Amino acid sequence: MKHRTLNIVADENIPQLEALFGPLGSIRRLPGRDMSPDALVDADLLLVRSITRVDRALLEGSRVRFVGTATIGTDHVDLDYLAGRGIAFSSAPGCNADAVVEFVLTVLYQLASEQGFSLRDKTLGIIGVGNVGGRLQQRLERLGVRLLLNDPPRAAASPEGFVTLDELLSQADIVSMHTPLISDGPYPTRHLLGSLQLAQLKRGAILLNAGRGGAIDNRALLDVARRRQDLTLVLDVWEHEPVVDPELAQRVRFCSPHIAGYSLDGKIRGTYMLYQAVRRLFGIGDAVAFESCVPEATIRMVDVSAQVEPLELMRLLYDPFRDDRELRATLGLPEAERGQAFDRLRKNYPVRREFATLKVRGDLDESRARELAALGFSVELA
Amino acid sequence: MKHRTLNIVADENIPQLEALFGPLGSIRRLPGRDMSPDALVDADLLLVRSITRVDRALLEGSRVRFVGTATIGTDHVDLDYLAGRGIAFSSAPGCNADAVVEFVLTVLYQLASEQGFSLRDKTLGIIGVGNVGGRLQQRLERLGVRLLLNDPPRAAASPEGFVTLDELLSQADIVSMHTPLISDGPYPTRHLLGSLQLAQLKRGAILLNAGRGGAIDNRALLDVARRRQDLTLVLDVWEHEPVVDPELAQRVRFCSPHIAGYSLDGKIRGTYMLYQAVRRLFGIGDAVAFESCVPEATIRMVDVSAQVEPLELMRLLYDPFRDDRELRATLGLPEAERGQAFDRLRKNYPVRREFATLKVRGDLDESRARELAALGFSVELA
Ligand SMILES: NC(=O)c1ccc[n+]([C@@H]2O[C@H](COP(=O)([O-])OP(=O)(O)OC[C@H]3O[C@@H](n4cnc5c(N)ncnc54)[C@H](O)[C@@H]3O)[C@@H](O)[C@H]2O)c1
Ligand SMILES: NC(=O)c1ccc[n+]([C@@H]2O[C@H](COP(=O)([O-])OP(=O)(O)OC[C@H]3O[C@@H](n4cnc5c(N)ncnc54)[C@H](O)[C@@H]3O)[C@@H](O)[C@H]2O)c1
Repeated sequence: MKHRTLNIVADENIPQLEALFGPLGSIRRLPGRDMSPDALVDADLLLVRSITRVDRALLEGSRVRFVGTATIGTDHVDLDYLAGRGIAFSSAPGCNADAVVEFVLTVLYQLASEQGFSLRDKTLGIIGVGNVGGRLQQRLERLGVRLLLNDPPRAAASPEGFVTLDELLSQADIVSMHTPLISDGPYPTRHLLGSLQLAQLKRGAILLNAGRGGAIDNRALLDVARRRQDLTLVLDVWEHEPVVDPELAQRVRFCSPHIAGYSLDGKIRGTYMLYQAVRRLFGIGDAVAFESCVPEATIRMVDVSAQVEPLELMRLLYDPFRDDRELRATLGLPEAERGQAFDRLRKNYPVRREFATLKVRGDLDESRARELAALGFSVELA
Repeated sequence: MKHRTLNIVADENIPQLEALFGPLGSIRRLPGRDMSPDALVDADLLLVRSITRVDRALLEGSRVRFVGTATIGTDHVDLDYLAGRGIAFSSAPGCNADAVVEFVLTVLYQLASEQGFSLRDKTLGIIGVGNVGGRLQQRLERLGVRLLLNDPPRAAASPEGFVTLDELLSQADIVSMHTPLISDGPYPTRHLLGSLQLAQLKRGAILLNAGRGGAIDNRALLDVARRRQDLTLVLDVWEHEPVVDPELAQRVRFCSPHIAGYSLDGKIRGTYMLYQAVRRLFGIGDAVAFESCVPEATIRMVDVSAQVEPLELMRLLYDPFRDDRELRATLGLPEAERGQAFDRLRKNYPVRREFATLKVRGDLDESRARELAALGFSVELA
């Protein structure tokens, strides 16, 4: 109780605020768009999402000592201004990386089942090996998939294990993009894949983008998609989001409205990371455990027979067809409504849980058990 | 072992032949199209599916004493000829009725979730209350849904509990058709729903047909579908099967290629019903238990929290979106290929299990547990 002293102003869409920040002070919840200097007069802590612009105009008259954004992006925050005023800041890098990885894995297993291949016989290239790409790398390594990694900023520091973009594009059967959108500096990613790069894709390649839309030149991609029926495209992010090019979407095998990372677990992990930052900042001792603020899964455990397919279990947690169907249904709308529909699909996204929330037990042989564990399920051996 | 004396000729597509008929004699398996008088010279038992025409031409020179068809239909069998020759006959009425019921229930729960209604607030009319309609009636009654039943042949014998077709059509919010296709006699069903009947459907009604396509005049239905956006149509069967009218299919909320009854359990139950008929006929004592010849489910049990939605569990067993998607993908093909694609989807239908194969346990309150049990799941109370 001794910490029930902080005045906290928070975006009402941040989940589990009460469970985590309730013990630390009093919370005033506001719509992200309604944050104003007036609302912050007595605030010590400001917790936002990407909808709130955090800058001098918002904070000038306040005594805020900490700003946290429960998102991985920080474009909406004037970090220089915060630093200049000595206001501590924290974001939630990697909070939903596992969700993106599970999106990618589910789509790949689905394609493997449709096209009749095994991931183990493929070479998979990851472009951008940060929080998301790095975790994708880990799970795929455990699955025994041959990997090519491209990440020039990381390679500049320590080149081992990385290949050039050209090598990756010309050798990978599957290419998965996980770079941020960077327009300048030594390693820009805007249009990282343009027509020249796309032309290098192998015959029959699969290309996924669940990073940022603009990292692929979408006009060049449409052009390639029109000409090359051999390619399989999976796009969760779009260059001119929230407006999706209907023709491009129609030529994509799985399309979705930038929801690869939208797990409930990831959202709550975002709040939890801010909570940990605040604990450190204010020297607050005993912590609430992450597990205790995540709701129970509706399907907690499955008992399976030896014949179970990993895809059956993945589809229990994530159904890529649902997202594809819902976005596809909006493609006939006029442009403005199409953009609104895209945002609405994101805003009203249903509860999605991560693989780790599902306990799997039953008659699993060792290699199947290892595969399910590598995929991220909580495998309980008998 | 004492019965290992019968010569059995069987369609190779009948599942679990060996497990059930192996102990009774020797089995020769043939493609259904390759059944010929030659193949039957020494046969005592003939087991077919609907692809084999069973008549004088096939049986004249044989000593066959029993013909069984592992299907509910018997149009392919010349029953008069069999009776005249004193050949015993059996089919498998109702073998896949539960699968059809589960198709209907899953689609209705899906529509309820999309359209925001509860089945308990609706009046549901069943046209044709035989094996399928009767079981649908049972499960819906246990769920507490208000029912209207129409079945003039049954009403002629015992009128209580039945309404006229006009009453049903004008009062039901949901209409589910489960009649056979009958062209003559006192109760023909061909075009049972024509334009006059379709015009009686209530505003916002849902109409399902998982009986026989020709029981609805599909041209009249298309006409109504064009004019009335308020209706929701679900068609598993089509008047000119295997050729589906693409425009009609496009105006249908869920379309599928006559697979409502295609559960693995139902197919094996078909074999089992023939096995029981043969046991009776030849006075064979100890029986193989049905359960022992049905493969284990890949997902045998789920442990759920109180928040679980019945639809989550139904979708684990049956995904109506999959069938809809696969059939829809064929609608652009030329007519002949469209028909072939329809047949191919049926032939290559994936393994589907019935609700009863899933054990459900967990923190269920009484009403949720009762609902899941009424739906057909094997609910295990703590
Ligand atoms: N689709 C979704 O729902 C979703 C969810 C989470 C993250 N994302 C996006 O995915 C991207 C990656 O997220 P993250 O958390 O892994 O970020 P991160 O910053 O942890 O990793 C990005 C990596 O990309 C590398 N990179 C930078 N420039 C590059 C270049 N020119 N070529 C190759 N690699 C380069 C960086 O070195 C870094 O390792 C971000 O843009 C993020 O917005 C999308
Ligand atoms: N879609 C599928 O995959 C699938 C699966 C199983 C059965 N079916 C079809 O469903 C239909 C019903 O199957 P079933 O096993 O319940 O058959 P059934 O013979 O047990 O029942 C049919 C019922 O329809 C009634 N009926 C007959 N004429 C009628 C009329 N004019 N109006 C109203 N009712 C009338 C009969 O009295 C009977 O009660 C059959 O045509 C069968 O081929 C389809």
